[in-house]
Amino acid sequence: MAVYTQLGPQQVDTLLAHYDVGKLVALKGIAEGVENSNFFVQTTQSRFILTLYENRVNPDDLPFFYALLKHLHDAGCKVPQFITDRDGQWLQTIAGRPACLIEFLDGVSVTEPTEAQAHSTGAALGHMHQALADFTLSRPNSLGVSAWRPLASRCTVEGLESIATGLSARVFAECDYLEAYWPTDLPVAAIHADLFPDNVLMLGDNVSGLIDFYFACSEVRAYDLAVTHSAWCFSNDGTAFDAEVSAGLLSGYADYLPLDTATREALPILLRGACLRFLLTRCYDWINTPANALVTRKDPLAFLRRLDFYSDGRHVENMLGHYT
Amino acid sequence: MAVYTQLGPQQVDTLLAHYDVGKLVALKGIAEGVENSNFFVQTTQSRFILTLYENRVNPDDLPFFYALLKHLHDAGCKVPQFITDRDGQWLQTIAGRPACLIEFLDGVSVTEPTEAQAHSTGAALGHMHQALADFTLSRPNSLGVSAWRPLASRCTVEGLESIATGLSARVFAECDYLEAYWPTDLPVAAIHADLFPDNVLMLGDNVSGLIDFYFACSEVRAYDLAVTHSAWCFSNDGTAFDAEVSAGLLSGYADYLPLDTATREALPILLRGACLRFLLTRCYDWINTPANALVTRKDPLAFLRRLDFYSDGRHVENMLGHYT
Repeated sequence: MAVYTQLGPQQVDTLLAHYDVGKLVALKGIAEGVENSNFFVQTTQSRFILTLYENRVNPDDLPFFYALLKHLHDAGCKVPQFITDRDGQWLQTIAGRPACLIEFLDGVSVTEPTEAQAHSTGAALGHMHQALADFTLSRPNSLGVSAWRPLASRCTVEGLESIATGLSARVFAECDYLEAYWPTDLPVAAIHADLFPDNVLMLGDNVSGLIDFYFACSEVRAYDLAVTHSAWCFSNDGTAFDAEVSAGLLSGYADYLPLDTATREALPILLRGACLRFLLTRCYDWINTPANALVTRKDPLAFLRRLDFYSDGRHVENMLGHYT
Repeated sequence: MAVYTQLGPQQVDTLLAHYDVGKLVALKGIAEGVENSNFFVQTTQSRFILTLYENRVNPDDLPFFYALLKHLHDAGCKVPQFITDRDGQWLQTIAGRPACLIEFLDGVSVTEPTEAQAHSTGAALGHMHQALADFTLSRPNSLGVSAWRPLASRCTVEGLESIATGLSARVFAECDYLEAYWPTDLPVAAIHADLFPDNVLMLGDNVSGLIDFYFACSEVRAYDLAVTHSAWCFSNDGTAFDAEVSAGLLSGYADYLPLDTATREALPILLRGACLRFLLTRCYDWINTPANALVTRKDPLAFLRRLDFYSDGRHVENMLGHYT
């Protein structure tokens, strides 16, 4: 949740005057995303999200995100569009910050997904990956396998041990393992990289939108499936694996892209990598966020528990049994 | 700004099933008010605000707020309505908290009001006061004149001096003065008590809604005009008085309720009281909010500067000259 910048309606009126979208009738700061300031904008014609990019998004990356969403939209994927003004500009400046007016998509983020909703999400992910096969722009993954050891070092042994005894040794051993076995023979493409339930809008059992592409990057494509799997198929605290949600997600994905032998063989590694990535960023935030701050710190151990689950080869075998 | 409680769409679906308002299609936490958790709710039929009352609102006060808004609505004032469900219930429980589904009003809160906007606001305030002449429920003002000295004491001399040298003596002298001269011969009625620009929705120069009645209480009616005047007629930091905005506000109000001799004579005291009330609550929050917290502390001295302005009798005479 975030609204870092305060906006007055006069500033938004001035912005909207560049567009053919009608007059402003409502403006509310919304608690969405953790990287940007977001506003709900209702005009006499339609609804929008106005996003102001704060320090954590590099404005140089915005053309990549714009092109990615346009490509996906043109391919029939349900993603929000950056709106262009009368001069064809989609990148604006407001309150001194880069800002974009973005299509508002109906839909709600589920907190306890069903198998049917996981199936739709897997299908939307597969459809997106299929559509991105001919997308040519690239963006490095600053949170990929080569970033995990330096991130663990920045957490410090002391910091990691303050979260759980033995966590430091576990994390560095996992870095050793993943660096040694990370797949190099799988397709690399643009991926979402953060497709938690928060970032999927649904109407009933159907996906109405994939949102928040600000971690999107070039990466082993099946890693995106691994991130999504780790994000969708467990109770929040990571203690309970949901085999039905897992089956739904995988079968939805396989409707678009088959889980071929190379992918199936790499998935145990990719799933562990996904867990380590979120474990480490959550550790870093945990160590560097005061306990009395108003932002909610997310429990790092929720992803250590997932890592434990995936590290047992039989679990992944069971999940994938259907596809062999 | 606030969203303290997280809500899943299933919880909102369950709530909406009691109402004839259509199905949920969008749900966003919004940064509105400082007392409650607020959500923008879009259904297939309409838009709403869903408010969850957190600790700072006493649920026992909700029937007063409900009755007040219904009374105002029935009298043609532009205020949001609490929506009743099929059983006539407007008070619900969600996530363990008292909650109300409330009409969404279009309009935006201006940050730099014009004279015309201040005129509309004064008129809306006067209309509201006129409409409340026959409203019979009452609620004590926990932030009225008798509360200021105890509040100053809770700030402590040390705390007040840490904000500005000499502030403690000034504050207690002001308590002496206001307790001695607070008017007892003016009409007492239900008032809004917090009509800052944030709490007025406008479309162009017209008021489309008065919102956030959670400080509403029984008080000297003209004190509401004083609060609104202190909130609207200065630059945020209190250094610059805007005579045109002041003239607009007063003349709009006088369109509904004349500024009679008793009111005009009491206004210098009421205006100083309004300043002391916000000065003290801001001091208290300043002293009790860590400097590194993510909530923005509002500058107490912005209301000390207003107090200085109103304490010069000539300023108030000039403002009111037109009405004598």
